[in-house]
Amino acid sequence: MRIRPDAEEPAVRDGLIWSLLVEPGDGVAGALVDALGAVDALDVAFGGDRIVRASAGEDERPAAAALRDGRRRWATRLDPAAHLGALRTAARIGARLLLPGDPEWPEALADLAAHAPRALWLRGDPTALAGPGVAIVGARASSSYGEHVTGEFAGELAAEGRVVFSGGAYGIDGTAHRAALRAGGATVAVLAGGVDRPYPSGHAQLFERIVAHGALVSEVACGGAPTKWRFLARNRVISALASATVVVEAGQRSGSLNTAGHAAALGRPLGAVPGPVTSTTSAGCHRLLRDYDARCITSVSDVRELLGVAAIAPRAEAEDPDMIRLADALNARSARSSVDLARLSGLGLDRVEALLGVLELDGSAMRTERGWRSVVF
Amino acid sequence: MRIRPDAEEPAVRDGLIWSLLVEPGDGVAGALVDALGAVDALDVAFGGDRIVRASAGEDERPAAAALRDGRRRWATRLDPAAHLGALRTAARIGARLLLPGDPEWPEALADLAAHAPRALWLRGDPTALAGPGVAIVGARASSSYGEHVTGEFAGELAAEGRVVFSGGAYGIDGTAHRAALRAGGATVAVLAGGVDRPYPSGHAQLFERIVAHGALVSEVACGGAPTKWRFLARNRVISALASATVVVEAGQRSGSLNTAGHAAALGRPLGAVPGPVTSTTSAGCHRLLRDYDARCITSVSDVRELLGVAAIAPRAEAEDPDMIRLADALNARSARSSVDLARLSGLGLDRVEALLGVLELDGSAMRTERGWRSVVF
Repeated sequence: MRIRPDAEEPAVRDGLIWSLLVEPGDGVAGALVDALGAVDALDVAFGGDRIVRASAGEDERPAAAALRDGRRRWATRLDPAAHLGALRTAARIGARLLLPGDPEWPEALADLAAHAPRALWLRGDPTALAGPGVAIVGARASSSYGEHVTGEFAGELAAEGRVVFSGGAYGIDGTAHRAALRAGGATVAVLAGGVDRPYPSGHAQLFERIVAHGALVSEVACGGAPTKWRFLARNRVISALASATVVVEAGQRSGSLNTAGHAAALGRPLGAVPGPVTSTTSAGCHRLLRDYDARCITSVSDVRELLGVAAIAPRAEAEDPDMIRLADALNARSARSSVDLARLSGLGLDRVEALLGVLELDGSAMRTERGWRSVVF
Repeated sequence: MRIRPDAEEPAVRDGLIWSLLVEPGDGVAGALVDALGAVDALDVAFGGDRIVRASAGEDERPAAAALRDGRRRWATRLDPAAHLGALRTAARIGARLLLPGDPEWPEALADLAAHAPRALWLRGDPTALAGPGVAIVGARASSSYGEHVTGEFAGELAAEGRVVFSGGAYGIDGTAHRAALRAGGATVAVLAGGVDRPYPSGHAQLFERIVAHGALVSEVACGGAPTKWRFLARNRVISALASATVVVEAGQRSGSLNTAGHAAALGRPLGAVPGPVTSTTSAGCHRLLRDYDARCITSVSDVRELLGVAAIAPRAEAEDPDMIRLADALNARSARSSVDLARLSGLGLDRVEALLGVLELDGSAMRTERGWRSVVF
């Protein structure tokens, strides 16, 4: 069966195979495919003797070792029967396969670099992926307060023509999708498992409505289970597709903090809605406000302002001169106190500490016993 | 009648006269008294021909003009009968006069420079002014949420020996004073009118309790009415006396935003407690968070941190046995692949990767080029 007319073309075929072999966010596979293209990358991965090409210009040893590890990972997935099953399901339910380079492939995902999805499986309207959109995410165990705010924000933004991105979960996510639909707008649910597996199953009907007025999308092929890892990896896709991310309610360890971290790491504007300090479902939002320099969002116009920042400076973080000065002051080998960093960068201590929070969140700086170090990827 | 034993000394007498003549925050009077001392300043202001001394080293024309304007202002207050009445009242109710240079004069007020109070009228314990204290202020029209949070913060901080400064108003202020008293701590109410005039009158009883366990203080002499200007000017005294200011609830145009502005202008740490975005009594706090870089305060330990006391943050320990096994397998110095971690921990690779996602999120593990490392705090 053919899930797209050009399915027999080598680049499409091998792109599809890669998407079936790797877990979301597999940076080794990503770097390999980015460097060589899907066809040659597959050849290198399983052809056996072309490792050198894959690691040209680098120290070959770590690259070769990474490739060896990768091959071990990927090989366990080489299962033609399972792949065939996934493709059959996709064809049956009308899921489309989008690959990088397709006209409908969302350019915004390129910001994820080697960790970008290798493919997207989609039901619904692929143009919805292009936005302009805002991610509205939050706790599964939401309060009526959080649901009220979510409904108001998502409804108004969708009515204005903005695509509401979320994760399809119970609580804030589901409320955001529903409000967007009710407003006659478009919404996109990015799932952690295959688009043939409604998860949570209680949202099966909601997902059908999303397919009709937006898109249901996943980087995991049909039949793929929504594992914990895939939930975390899925979050990076939500934050990358949206121009800005707003966390409405989040517990102290909510998965939506992970989405927020990805947004910050991508330099996408990040907002958090405050709530009562007595409410555990707002604790994560307060943490984002306090430690991660998230913008305090109290109204739809605050969200518009957040998105306006996006329109003017989509890579705000990367281009922030303060961030550049702080990055210059950080060292990968020797830890430095925030006071030293303030002195070296010439920035105020408050500013340094706020920026360090952002860097820690996106993994480019780490706190150690003796101070802060930069992390080299 | 003598309100203090040294009331006849020229510096005390003239300091007292200045405090009776000027409105709070009169910068011209302040600069004059700071430059010449109370006695010579009074001589210059009303002696007629010593303007040159007052403006030595400056362009004389603006200084002379300011002095002429000032003299006009002050002259209208030269009313011996009224002054005598104020002193009589002070003596009767046992109000003390504190002047700059007195051992109990709070040094912190020097940060207000020329706008510092010229005198303080006080009932109660003058040592309470020295703190260490925190200002807890907010809306008169507080919600039960704001009162709950205020009661908790003020009670705990007062029990720890911190002086709670506030403005004696209904709502958050009164709740803060009461909670401090209930905790057996000390609290200071800074009034906009004379300490003989309980304002609001409904707080007369509360003020008596404050006199017994702290201090009631004003820079306005007895009989002075709490005018709008004096409320605004009073706010700078609260923010200057306290080491940090926390706004618990504030409407969009609340006077406590003015106190917050003074705290920020003085370089004192400023915190704001978030609340529901649907609550108008939290709108001012959200504005402080959004536009004035106030710290998001959700707990007493956040206030302690604001005060510069290192908070002992209990680290969230994973109780999941899988998490413990994975933590055992991770090493701070040598990076390990998730495959190795799966082998070392005896967990499945998927499980390992999901747990690593969680550990990465809370900052206890980091992804490097060569695999995963634990992060030592």
